[in-house]
Amino acid sequence: MAKPLNIGMIGYGFMGRTHSNAYAKVNHFFDLEYKPVLKACCARKEDKIKAFAENWGYESYETDWRRLIERDDIDVIDIGSPNNTHHEIALAAAKAGKMILCEKPLAMTNTEAEEMVEAVEKAGVPNMVWYNYRRVPAISLAKQIVDEGRVGKTFHYRATYLQDWTIASDVPQGGAALWRLDAKVAGSGVTGDLLAHSIDTAEWLNGPIARVSAATETFVKERKHAETGEVTPVTIDDACMFLAIFENGSMGTFESTRYARGRKNYNTFEMNGEKGSVFFDLEDPHILQYFKYADPNSDAKVEDHLTGWQRIHVTNFEHPYMDKWWVPGCTIGYEHTFINAVADFLKGLETGEAVQPDFKCALHTQKVCDAVLKSARTKEWVEI
Amino acid sequence: MAKPLNIGMIGYGFMGRTHSNAYAKVNHFFDLEYKPVLKACCARKEDKIKAFAENWGYESYETDWRRLIERDDIDVIDIGSPNNTHHEIALAAAKAGKMILCEKPLAMTNTEAEEMVEAVEKAGVPNMVWYNYRRVPAISLAKQIVDEGRVGKTFHYRATYLQDWTIASDVPQGGAALWRLDAKVAGSGVTGDLLAHSIDTAEWLNGPIARVSAATETFVKERKHAETGEVTPVTIDDACMFLAIFENGSMGTFESTRYARGRKNYNTFEMNGEKGSVFFDLEDPHILQYFKYADPNSDAKVEDHLTGWQRIHVTNFEHPYMDKWWVPGCTIGYEHTFINAVADFLKGLETGEAVQPDFKCALHTQKVCDAVLKSARTKEWVEI
Amino acid sequence: MAKPLNIGMIGYGFMGRTHSNAYAKVNHFFDLEYKPVLKACCARKEDKIKAFAENWGYESYETDWRRLIERDDIDVIDIGSPNNTHHEIALAAAKAGKMILCEKPLAMTNTEAEEMVEAVEKAGVPNMVWYNYRRVPAISLAKQIVDEGRVGKTFHYRATYLQDWTIASDVPQGGAALWRLDAKVAGSGVTGDLLAHSIDTAEWLNGPIARVSAATETFVKERKHAETGEVTPVTIDDACMFLAIFENGSMGTFESTRYARGRKNYNTFEMNGEKGSVFFDLEDPHILQYFKYADPNSDAKVEDHLTGWQRIHVTNFEHPYMDKWWVPGCTIGYEHTFINAVADFLKGLETGEAVQPDFKCALHTQKVCDAVLKSARTKEWVEI
Amino acid sequence: MAKPLNIGMIGYGFMGRTHSNAYAKVNHFFDLEYKPVLKACCARKEDKIKAFAENWGYESYETDWRRLIERDDIDVIDIGSPNNTHHEIALAAAKAGKMILCEKPLAMTNTEAEEMVEAVEKAGVPNMVWYNYRRVPAISLAKQIVDEGRVGKTFHYRATYLQDWTIASDVPQGGAALWRLDAKVAGSGVTGDLLAHSIDTAEWLNGPIARVSAATETFVKERKHAETGEVTPVTIDDACMFLAIFENGSMGTFESTRYARGRKNYNTFEMNGEKGSVFFDLEDPHILQYFKYADPNSDAKVEDHLTGWQRIHVTNFEHPYMDKWWVPGCTIGYEHTFINAVADFLKGLETGEAVQPDFKCALHTQKVCDAVLKSARTKEWVEI
Repeated sequence: MAKPLNIGMIGYGFMGRTHSNAYAKVNHFFDLEYKPVLKACCARKEDKIKAFAENWGYESYETDWRRLIERDDIDVIDIGSPNNTHHEIALAAAKAGKMILCEKPLAMTNTEAEEMVEAVEKAGVPNMVWYNYRRVPAISLAKQIVDEGRVGKTFHYRATYLQDWTIASDVPQGGAALWRLDAKVAGSGVTGDLLAHSIDTAEWLNGPIARVSAATETFVKERKHAETGEVTPVTIDDACMFLAIFENGSMGTFESTRYARGRKNYNTFEMNGEKGSVFFDLEDPHILQYFKYADPNSDAKVEDHLTGWQRIHVTNFEHPYMDKWWVPGCTIGYEHTFINAVADFLKGLETGEAVQPDFKCALHTQKVCDAVLKSARTKEWVEI
Repeated sequence: MAKPLNIGMIGYGFMGRTHSNAYAKVNHFFDLEYKPVLKACCARKEDKIKAFAENWGYESYETDWRRLIERDDIDVIDIGSPNNTHHEIALAAAKAGKMILCEKPLAMTNTEAEEMVEAVEKAGVPNMVWYNYRRVPAISLAKQIVDEGRVGKTFHYRATYLQDWTIASDVPQGGAALWRLDAKVAGSGVTGDLLAHSIDTAEWLNGPIARVSAATETFVKERKHAETGEVTPVTIDDACMFLAIFENGSMGTFESTRYARGRKNYNTFEMNGEKGSVFFDLEDPHILQYFKYADPNSDAKVEDHLTGWQRIHVTNFEHPYMDKWWVPGCTIGYEHTFINAVADFLKGLETGEAVQPDFKCALHTQKVCDAVLKSARTKEWVEI
Repeated sequence: MAKPLNIGMIGYGFMGRTHSNAYAKVNHFFDLEYKPVLKACCARKEDKIKAFAENWGYESYETDWRRLIERDDIDVIDIGSPNNTHHEIALAAAKAGKMILCEKPLAMTNTEAEEMVEAVEKAGVPNMVWYNYRRVPAISLAKQIVDEGRVGKTFHYRATYLQDWTIASDVPQGGAALWRLDAKVAGSGVTGDLLAHSIDTAEWLNGPIARVSAATETFVKERKHAETGEVTPVTIDDACMFLAIFENGSMGTFESTRYARGRKNYNTFEMNGEKGSVFFDLEDPHILQYFKYADPNSDAKVEDHLTGWQRIHVTNFEHPYMDKWWVPGCTIGYEHTFINAVADFLKGLETGEAVQPDFKCALHTQKVCDAVLKSARTKEWVEI
Repeated sequence: MAKPLNIGMIGYGFMGRTHSNAYAKVNHFFDLEYKPVLKACCARKEDKIKAFAENWGYESYETDWRRLIERDDIDVIDIGSPNNTHHEIALAAAKAGKMILCEKPLAMTNTEAEEMVEAVEKAGVPNMVWYNYRRVPAISLAKQIVDEGRVGKTFHYRATYLQDWTIASDVPQGGAALWRLDAKVAGSGVTGDLLAHSIDTAEWLNGPIARVSAATETFVKERKHAETGEVTPVTIDDACMFLAIFENGSMGTFESTRYARGRKNYNTFEMNGEKGSVFFDLEDPHILQYFKYADPNSDAKVEDHLTGWQRIHVTNFEHPYMDKWWVPGCTIGYEHTFINAVADFLKGLETGEAVQPDFKCALHTQKVCDAVLKSARTKEWVEI
């Protein structure tokens, strides 16, 4: 019989839904010692959080996160609230000895992030940051391919994360739904929201970024506020692009925007190495493209006339996570990245191994984001 | 507060999982009057069904489906057991006044299917057959495009359903896991398993098939039995292909096999009409390809130089079902087709409208399957 | 110094252009003993053929093909005129001891084709039929892959050849430009024009077709004549589909139409075998898709997690014909299939080996076409 | 009757072939007043240039380009020799009043390029630089789409030009075949060879680049010389990436390398604007991808559920240049970009309009290249 693990979920928005769904489903598919229990959820607006609790079957709800943290019947604090709340909540939760699952980006600034790492390390509590895309099976497979030495010495890494939902100048900013367009709440625009994902994946696959040269742009200069109706300057970066040099000497290009007409969730990366290449696009999340070099010096029969990019349909039993789901050829979707992540976190509790990316790992991503924004301001290369 | 609808699930295999998952999740995402309750599941092997009940949170279990049907606390009988059980169970369930959700194909033969239609119509019970692929949002969108008149007069329809998992001659046949390879249990091979899906979709989009010319093949002539170990002749069709003429005069080609190396779940269709065409492939289930003719006689500005197949990423809020799930660009997967189907069934209970495909609709698919198999035997065209 | 080979080209239409271009270019790219000389071209309309001769640099022209055949300074008769002229010209040319290059389909009927084979064999003259698509490098590569045993025992072959240029009911029929829509001149519609290509490729890759079941359709029943303006019944097949059983036991589906909205030159084939599969589409002629099975019983390290369809960009030096053209990554186009064909023909003259497909080979394609049309009429399976 | 235009071709390498082929073919397909005559070709090595002259049918050859320029029977000097010869030849040819067609990049440096522009303007001779990719029909179509206002205000431009042919460290450098790897002869590595193409296309479509931040890398530090066998430092940039700000305020990323395993000729661009986007990839040169925004404020019926990237098969008669070639669905290849370019040049002689890109236009591309290399050295943003 699985051991209950009591979840205290903060936030009821988009991430509140993805996380709750993950907790509710994970034990139906993964064989685990622990079983999350939807103990309590929390938000300031009582009507909203009450409805949320009912919909997802939370046993109770709170309207003050401090109260949630005080509760003895909560094992895990899941921080799914806006970015400007992560730091304070995490520090309190760590102090209270709770395990912490925190949405990305970890913090508003490098300084905040460092304090958060210190707090969880001091408290010795299990912690993880929701860079969920690591658990797209195709991205996990890319990592496996890299670890198997099939890419070899890396020459290039390129990533984009393109969307198109803020092009219209009458999209408002701020408030509950659109806090991602308000720098006071979000910290930054696409850099923290989208590029943080790209950087997390890049450093996972290709190691640390050493230095960057960046430029940002805010295409629509002012917008109406979603709640006040007041027209005020837009404070976030609408788009950000940067050049990177990785510590292993490879070159990187990164770009993110919400102004790429026709791109909905175009989170792509390509890695070119001496022995092979991989390419991924989140709009076709079940596919990993892989190019294998036909090395004329290898023992294997050279088959130069057969080389080409392979479109791997990442739904076979031997692919990461896929033995837990359906049968070969049957895809999983966006939400499953969160379920796979929870499964790994729970497995980590069994084995005692820290699951990645933890706060410390996410701190480095934060540092790269900070360096990118600094470079954009100073127009100089910035070392991480 | 949602009204409980007590489910009695028969079968714990692959379809037992997909259906249970659907019942467990549907109310988290759809706003409905009814809420399925996992009341009881049923199978002959007690250890298996007990574990299944525990995993999915069924309140109880039975080892005899007759007992399940007798229970007053069951509203819906869900038939997820092998094909040769559908007829008997459905007749009993209808007699007991239960709603029935039956896996496809509806029956072993046309005659069985007719009796089942008669039974549910006499009993007046809501009923549906799990042709889940109608609820792939991209296929629902194809239906919408057809209904909007964007394809126009149809000339051609072509469908394939290709897999490759039985090529190795040492794959056994029969038993709990591989009953689909045993004609006594499954009725037929790829015709009932895969082509039935293709036919259901085809007739939904393009109307009834009038006549067919078919050929079938069994490539591996004998296989070891999965349980007895005995080597016996293979009784199913490994592959089936047929030509069709639709009642609307359009021409159709259909093909299904489990011997198409490299195709995992290659369920495709293409429809070519006077005004446009659509193409779908289940291996990329979030995509519908659409070609719109630039009619020189239309009022709209002719843009001949811009015509091309459009790759519609069917994840926008305006796409079928997608306002219930995540945000544009975020895909759903195989399992969601079942959840969408349950949602439609429950919505049908609210409105009193029969949800399609019901038993009567599935009967026609059965007739086409029977005609196909007959044509393959007689080597003649067969009228439906 | 290359030996001159004097060409007598009959026809100045689309095929007149492709062949003339091939003769003019071949020696710039291939190192050959023979060099075609544009000696004379021929057609009944003097103004047309004169302009054609000037444009392409023919030294002279004729208005009667009999006169062309009589000329001693002509080595090769190239028959690029409509289908109903092939038989008579070929017989005369063979009798005169000329080499013959004949456009496809070889003849109007099986009987005609047999007489043509007899004639060239009796005369002992080199001969070839312009099934140019064999010389698409990607198709030649498919042949190489098959010959290397990489597909293995074949289970399935499927081919389509889809176009959309005759959907509008005001497209006229007949006359110089549209003789392909007139059965008296063309013999048949899509069967001889498009399916003949598909059949030639299929039998080249997968061996002879043994029997077929077919259906044809004429969607637009009458059309205005391009020259007379008279509205008369359409005599050709607009669309044709057929099932095939190959002599090797594999199953085939074939379909061709000029009513597939959005398909311009969608000449595709897919071949599924025990060890691998190949897929080709003439709309992306530089690509061959190849799937290689990761055989668990092979000596090679099994790499199940890496299998996927490979998109081979057939532009490397090691690919068929591509060492003669540009550099890897640079594509060739439609016209190059004719140039490659001429090069092979000339190389055959050097080596004395008959270049395929010769008349005899094309005779079998003709037989399949005849069987297809007969099956469509009789609604029965027809043996080849 | 077409007026002869006598060509004097300098160089017999890869570009010597593409240009000669263009001159030989252009009048077969385009209806033009002028007809190039292959009067003379020129190179220092007599055996090589003699064989080249024979193969292509040049009437004569020279071994000293000065002698070629002195000849009265030469109208056009075509400079297809290595980059370090362009300046001197162009100045002499202009002085002699010859028309000049010069391979790209125009020069070794900005200074050289300015003198060349001055020379041709002073001489008043027609001139063009062989940025042939403008004449890929799909790229010409992209330009047309931009000019029609279908992209609208641009936000982003991104370009890559990726190859993989110098990864092996035993590829030698220098000499006749590999002068592109020798900075003394080529001026730079991928910047002048590949990025120059990307920049030319970018500025054609999106206007001038205003400033850049760049980084370059030389992955293999020393190589054996192709002719001397001596191992010496590699002097070129193996890879180059840069950020750009265009004068219109849009953001650009550019990257080029010969170390992207699996990419052969991956010359891509994507342009995202308020109204639409376009994407092109030279490995599929017959395709332009186009996304059209469904503007809810437009008069046209909004069809949000139908939007998607359109794969335009750029082979219709209404597409740029395609009415001159074959029929819809039939592709042209790499070499045709040169033929189309010559056709435009000859048409320019008829109309008296300067054909683009001329020397002056190519000078700006040169300036951007110089700025890129300077930025890579100084690690600072550089204004053009």
